[in-house]
Amino acid sequence: MKQNERIFRYNPNDSVRKFATMPEKITLVGGGLSGGLLSVFLARRGYEVHVYERRPDMRQGNYAGGRSINLALSARGIRGLEKAGIAQDILDIGIPMTGRMMHDREGNLAYQPYGKNGQAIYSISRGGLNIRLLQLAGAYPNIHLYFDHKCTFCDPQTGITRYTDVHGNQVEDKADIVIGTDGVFSAVRDAFMNSRFNYSQSYEDHGYKELEITPDALSDFRLNKNYLHIWPRSSYMMIALPNTGGNFTCTLFMPWEGETSFATLNTKERVQSFFQKDFADAVPLMPGLIDDFFGNPTGSLATFRCYPWVKERAVLLGDSAHGIIPFYGQGMNCCFEDCIVLDDFIESCNGDWTKALEGYQQSRKPNSDAIASLAIQNFVEMRDLVGTESFRHRKHVEHDLTELYPDLFKSQYELTTFHTTPYKYALDMGAKNDKLLNHIISKGLESKMNDRAYMEPLIKEMLS
Amino acid sequence: MKQNERIFRYNPNDSVRKFATMPEKITLVGGGLSGGLLSVFLARRGYEVHVYERRPDMRQGNYAGGRSINLALSARGIRGLEKAGIAQDILDIGIPMTGRMMHDREGNLAYQPYGKNGQAIYSISRGGLNIRLLQLAGAYPNIHLYFDHKCTFCDPQTGITRYTDVHGNQVEDKADIVIGTDGVFSAVRDAFMNSRFNYSQSYEDHGYKELEITPDALSDFRLNKNYLHIWPRSSYMMIALPNTGGNFTCTLFMPWEGETSFATLNTKERVQSFFQKDFADAVPLMPGLIDDFFGNPTGSLATFRCYPWVKERAVLLGDSAHGIIPFYGQGMNCCFEDCIVLDDFIESCNGDWTKALEGYQQSRKPNSDAIASLAIQNFVEMRDLVGTESFRHRKHVEHDLTELYPDLFKSQYELTTFHTTPYKYALDMGAKNDKLLNHIISKGLESKMNDRAYMEPLIKEMLS
Repeated sequence: MKQNERIFRYNPNDSVRKFATMPEKITLVGGGLSGGLLSVFLARRGYEVHVYERRPDMRQGNYAGGRSINLALSARGIRGLEKAGIAQDILDIGIPMTGRMMHDREGNLAYQPYGKNGQAIYSISRGGLNIRLLQLAGAYPNIHLYFDHKCTFCDPQTGITRYTDVHGNQVEDKADIVIGTDGVFSAVRDAFMNSRFNYSQSYEDHGYKELEITPDALSDFRLNKNYLHIWPRSSYMMIALPNTGGNFTCTLFMPWEGETSFATLNTKERVQSFFQKDFADAVPLMPGLIDDFFGNPTGSLATFRCYPWVKERAVLLGDSAHGIIPFYGQGMNCCFEDCIVLDDFIESCNGDWTKALEGYQQSRKPNSDAIASLAIQNFVEMRDLVGTESFRHRKHVEHDLTELYPDLFKSQYELTTFHTTPYKYALDMGAKNDKLLNHIISKGLESKMNDRAYMEPLIKEMLS
Repeated sequence: MKQNERIFRYNPNDSVRKFATMPEKITLVGGGLSGGLLSVFLARRGYEVHVYERRPDMRQGNYAGGRSINLALSARGIRGLEKAGIAQDILDIGIPMTGRMMHDREGNLAYQPYGKNGQAIYSISRGGLNIRLLQLAGAYPNIHLYFDHKCTFCDPQTGITRYTDVHGNQVEDKADIVIGTDGVFSAVRDAFMNSRFNYSQSYEDHGYKELEITPDALSDFRLNKNYLHIWPRSSYMMIALPNTGGNFTCTLFMPWEGETSFATLNTKERVQSFFQKDFADAVPLMPGLIDDFFGNPTGSLATFRCYPWVKERAVLLGDSAHGIIPFYGQGMNCCFEDCIVLDDFIESCNGDWTKALEGYQQSRKPNSDAIASLAIQNFVEMRDLVGTESFRHRKHVEHDLTELYPDLFKSQYELTTFHTTPYKYALDMGAKNDKLLNHIISKGLESKMNDRAYMEPLIKEMLS
């Protein structure tokens, strides 16, 4: 193929079809996790689906970065995968984590279960999941995947999108519907910006750095693999999630600036002594610490909110509509739930996309705002509170309530992670739960926890 | 000059100078009100100032739009003009407005003074003021003005900016400091967006449309020119400000969508009957109503917030740093105060720009956030409350307090409009004033207003 050619993936003499109540061709900008799953849902409904992905085809084994980076998969994400028929495949290669294991400075451990017996979230490989989704998509004759295509333009009115491919060619596409599944720096969203579009990006003072706890000499895990490990240190913290290779991906969250920060940890000696002081039990498990610390980039953490998500033929879904910080482990789960909600509206609106898209955005926006807020709340909880005695006591009382009164009391974490009730409901119930816990602790009612005649009316009243 | 030439406004072989504690060359992107005034302040300090403006040279009489659009000039803006030595020139051609004149549906009038006797804000022509500032700037040998230059690129690290001029030439400039005075859709700010930059744009459900009350047969004003006229109608409203030509510029604020909205006022008959019903006393004064309504664009209303305002050599000032809605009449006044604050920091930091810029942004950000909030509060007040009996009573009590206890009590409006205390102080005092007013009204203390022995301790306590 000649370089810098102009390629049309449609007949450029076609006039724009009237906004279709029943579209034929849907273009997805972005073939990551959201785009991968959504393409399958849409293909199953018979649409012609074209997926343009900026990165190379990761099915060829060149997943960007190559290192094992993991995500927490929970109920909402599992439900999305079930709808695509691959939940069991993915769970089989995931590692269940049943709770948090806290490591203090002296190396003492404290365990907080996430839910009731057996309830777990799953550590899975981001790259592995994405590849699996693309393999699934690639098997559909009505899904067309284009890699190395960077989106440079989107016109919501005509449905035209443009791309630069790896050879420098200009590629133009026209579709009945264009869905931006292209993440927090979405090119589709850029086309929304200058027309009464509410938008915010809000960065945390903290950044993050990925590090590694390697497998032992027998290629086995050096920490219990069935926990999410946390080293909470108030203004900073480290977490570790297991990978199938016997290693853990650690993430250090720390301020960019200030006394103890990425700015001041600028020599090998400082990093070494900082880890020795704060994460002494982890240091022997991290032989590549110094190389990783100076070799890996420092990432930023931000919350992105916007509205509306629909403009003429263009739609935002997944991180392009709502980028959240990772502290509730819900980023991917929320994106997959977006796919389910849109798919449900397509069905219930009998293919009337104007109605379906309006239903999708109105239904989904309050819930994506809620999980964004929950993630910020959990950041504070994990960083500042999780290691304190009062917090542990509170979690203990909460856990007892979930065990003793499972029908009346569900924790916010349980509602968010193990249920598929709307995120907004989980947020609202969490606020009510907090009042109940405050009441129990401040009035010293822990001794009455087993007194059903006393507790049941109290719980009912305070959570109503 | 050949078309599509590449023009360098510096020696492209120059290496980048170390970030200058004492810069020599400062480039302003945007020659509107903020850029015009700031260029004069900087020129007076001896800097070489280059100003690139997207629009043609409005000193040639081709001010965009050409219609008379006015702004409210008050204490902060006047102080900025005083520093530039042109306050009296501008006030001489401004029209003082001493209060709000409310028009109800039956044409009954009610007056609310803005401040104490004689205190006024000034209706002035936006175009006239901008031209005057550019004339002043043009007289400085160290200010270089370039018109018809649209900024296309800014690199905060090198201080390089690029422009397309009216002939299609690419112009490149390099400066020690680049200041974005290019408004709410700032090109300089675009260069901040992808690097831990907090940003939000938030649109109101209301839009606005400019209309006109024409002069009478003797070219005189058809309403009292010394008031800001308001037709408050709860979910929508119209205001009118006088121009020196004997006309008033009216602005109708109304929802974009809904029962009574720009969307439904889509025929001449509907517009005519809507105005006849809601603004009956104004209709005879607006002979061009229908033509204006369908000929003039509908504008949008939004609040823009961002931070930081300084990135390496690039700085945001004026609307590029904080776009606010127009309901406190403070947009320009706030921008001029930005100029004063930056100029003060340049002086107090002895030309150390790193310190000066840090001082400027830290000092100014909370105050620009405060005026953004005040403007939103005032939108609600003007739209929903200003016509109600309870609001009038409240304003009456407030006015009595300002008259009886001028040293102890200053209204939020007075602090914002007639003083130059920080906006944040005005916002905070307004909240305290509200509590005092609630107390007086709910306890029925109006009869004690003249009882100094009772009132003075009460005021002092509640406002402390």
